[in-house]
Amino acid sequence: MTATQLNDAVFVDVPTHWYNLAAELDEPIPPHLHPGTKELVGPDDLVALFPMGLIAQEVAAEPYIEIPEPVREIYKMWRPSPLLRARKFEEALNTKARIYVKYEGVSPVGSHKTNSAVAQAYYNYVDGVTKLTTETGAGQWGSALAFAGAQFGIDVEVWQVRASYDSKPYRGYLMRTYGATLHPSPSELTASGRAMLAKDPNTTGSLGMAVSEAVEVAAGDPAARYALGSVLNHVVLHQSVIGQEAVEQLAAVEPDGADIVFGCAGGGSNLGGLAFPFLREKIHGRSNPRIIAAEPSACPSITEGEYRYDHGDVAGLTPLLKMHTLGMDFVPDPIHAGGLRYHGMAPALSHTVEQGLVQGVAITQHDAFTAGVQFARAQGIVPAPESTHAIAACAAHVADSDRDEVVVIGLSGHGQLDLPAYAEYLDGKI
Amino acid sequence: MTATQLNDAVFVDVPTHWYNLAAELDEPIPPHLHPGTKELVGPDDLVALFPMGLIAQEVAAEPYIEIPEPVREIYKMWRPSPLLRARKFEEALNTKARIYVKYEGVSPVGSHKTNSAVAQAYYNYVDGVTKLTTETGAGQWGSALAFAGAQFGIDVEVWQVRASYDSKPYRGYLMRTYGATLHPSPSELTASGRAMLAKDPNTTGSLGMAVSEAVEVAAGDPAARYALGSVLNHVVLHQSVIGQEAVEQLAAVEPDGADIVFGCAGGGSNLGGLAFPFLREKIHGRSNPRIIAAEPSACPSITEGEYRYDHGDVAGLTPLLKMHTLGMDFVPDPIHAGGLRYHGMAPALSHTVEQGLVQGVAITQHDAFTAGVQFARAQGIVPAPESTHAIAACAAHVADSDRDEVVVIGLSGHGQLDLPAYAEYLDGKI
Repeated sequence: MTATQLNDAVFVDVPTHWYNLAAELDEPIPPHLHPGTKELVGPDDLVALFPMGLIAQEVAAEPYIEIPEPVREIYKMWRPSPLLRARKFEEALNTKARIYVKYEGVSPVGSHKTNSAVAQAYYNYVDGVTKLTTETGAGQWGSALAFAGAQFGIDVEVWQVRASYDSKPYRGYLMRTYGATLHPSPSELTASGRAMLAKDPNTTGSLGMAVSEAVEVAAGDPAARYALGSVLNHVVLHQSVIGQEAVEQLAAVEPDGADIVFGCAGGGSNLGGLAFPFLREKIHGRSNPRIIAAEPSACPSITEGEYRYDHGDVAGLTPLLKMHTLGMDFVPDPIHAGGLRYHGMAPALSHTVEQGLVQGVAITQHDAFTAGVQFARAQGIVPAPESTHAIAACAAHVADSDRDEVVVIGLSGHGQLDLPAYAEYLDGKI
Repeated sequence: MTATQLNDAVFVDVPTHWYNLAAELDEPIPPHLHPGTKELVGPDDLVALFPMGLIAQEVAAEPYIEIPEPVREIYKMWRPSPLLRARKFEEALNTKARIYVKYEGVSPVGSHKTNSAVAQAYYNYVDGVTKLTTETGAGQWGSALAFAGAQFGIDVEVWQVRASYDSKPYRGYLMRTYGATLHPSPSELTASGRAMLAKDPNTTGSLGMAVSEAVEVAAGDPAARYALGSVLNHVVLHQSVIGQEAVEQLAAVEPDGADIVFGCAGGGSNLGGLAFPFLREKIHGRSNPRIIAAEPSACPSITEGEYRYDHGDVAGLTPLLKMHTLGMDFVPDPIHAGGLRYHGMAPALSHTVEQGLVQGVAITQHDAFTAGVQFARAQGIVPAPESTHAIAACAAHVADSDRDEVVVIGLSGHGQLDLPAYAEYLDGKI
């Protein structure tokens, strides 16, 4: 792999393999348990919902898994994503640190979510699946899966939480532009949706309810499967293209590698995808980066949650996952970083926290937007509200510092569809 | 300049000079005339509104003008923009043509407008100007100037047409995120605004009225100047970075160059910026590309306008410009491609049309969105409504074709902030 430096950006080839950090750790990730029996979950328990290719990846034991060529061909439509030196932001922070930004906002839908959506659509396509169902909150995952479905000729049906469906319609328009079908959740289309509406006809819905509707439809249709946008091991695996590229790109300009890496953590796939290849460098003694998981104060699963088995959804239908959790019933404040409003944390990432390889830090919404606006004015890119958490954590660490330090920020997406949140901040309401 | 091919994208260095096609044509561009005397406009007539650096560029006689280093440094934050092979779109069109897309949507604000905004802010900064005023319709230009102002510490004050200000608030939020001040137009802040409101308190405003307010404020403040986002020669000049990069990028993969180039044309700076370096290749005998200017049927200045002197604004305050015009009073239908709703066409581009170097084609809004949706489902990128006109013109030319042809499409920006227009199309309302 050779790296190319173009002005403020560095590029490398798209990786040929996904990287599975778990295979290189002494302690394995605790396995998922069946929600009813509390025994180990086996492939038979998952086959109604997921294709075999993904079930195999969920328990993979090898460190590298080849990326199928059709997936890699689609990645090449926007990957490698750039690693940018953020010189103006360095100036704004009055720091001697050298800040590099790994920017996933160049993907078709403007976030990292496409990295897993394309892979998931592919393995379903290989299994002859013609319909995928999923849930979405603000819509990043739903629009990524809609794009991926269009690439493989798979119908995509999305249940979007009613509150987001009504108040933030742009990502819904995006899903429809890619050809997906969109329903507000709860809907009259499923038993669980109808039950919810009977209970409260004016409910604004919840992510847990939308999961239940999408799972119900997939489970009842032999040609359909369900897709999940974060948390599970195979999703974190797919996101490893981010960190693998970033390690190579950084090596082209900083031979000693990164001193510290900041990413935002909601379900954990963005941070895991960015950080695990940097941890590979640490494990193999090539560099010694600290990894910081920036999470919202409103939903602090790493910094304040318990590490234990818990369900991934509100209804308790999913397997039990060993993770940092605030409890399946925890309802975070309605912060704008919708992608970070999840009660748990990916088992793979939780495991690295327990191993002392990743450290959490909680960021308030106000501090996150303050950093986001400062970054936008310096670098032009308006970051997604989720990504502003990583920027704020970085700013707090490097501002007015004389340390000769190499810093990487994972910018998971742009915030062009989240501009009303910026307006609220500028109006002093956040 | 060496080119780098990375998967589906080709990159080159950012150009060191802007390219001024007019200097290489036998016939010069007809000069601008004073609106009162109808004599040639001189620097003294423009100095209240524009800095000297830009006034000089308006009448430049040399083919290459060096890009100041501070401007080039900012360009490097997102330039070179990628030239992408659109393989999936080729498949969707069932064509043997090889389609390359020059994509300006990677700029901080998502369109080509930043190329001139940064240059204009710089020359004003050099002259000690501390405030820039401008008008904007849908907000592409206003947000580009807001970004550029933030880079040079210049206050930016934008008058946005009331109808857009109320109904399409996202780009207004973007301008404010960059630190700009935004007013709906007409406003109570200017004499012309107050006069308009006295006449009709419920007016939704017009671009012509917003120009008058921005010009009035700049003319009355010695520290302030005015900035225009298209039409004038210096704006077209700045946009030549697009075409210069595209010619070099294409040469790396297609040694014979382009057979045909499609761009959308509103005020003309996007198409001129893309096409003029390709015309340089034609003039110097290195290739022989056809250039197609795709304009909306609702505002067909090239295909149906007259070539004559006309004002650039509704109030008749600007110099008289020799151009293709539908008449300064022409009010186009409210199509979603707000950037193409202009009664005239840049004198530099109109001149090349008269010289037989550029050919116009009119595209209906329905056909434009049909092509835009087809492109989005194939390539992932949702094009700006303006850009869909170029895509539709290309699709009509290459669909089901066996010709071995090299095609370039200028994609002036992304349409993430224009998704409601896509929803209208999908709902059968366009």
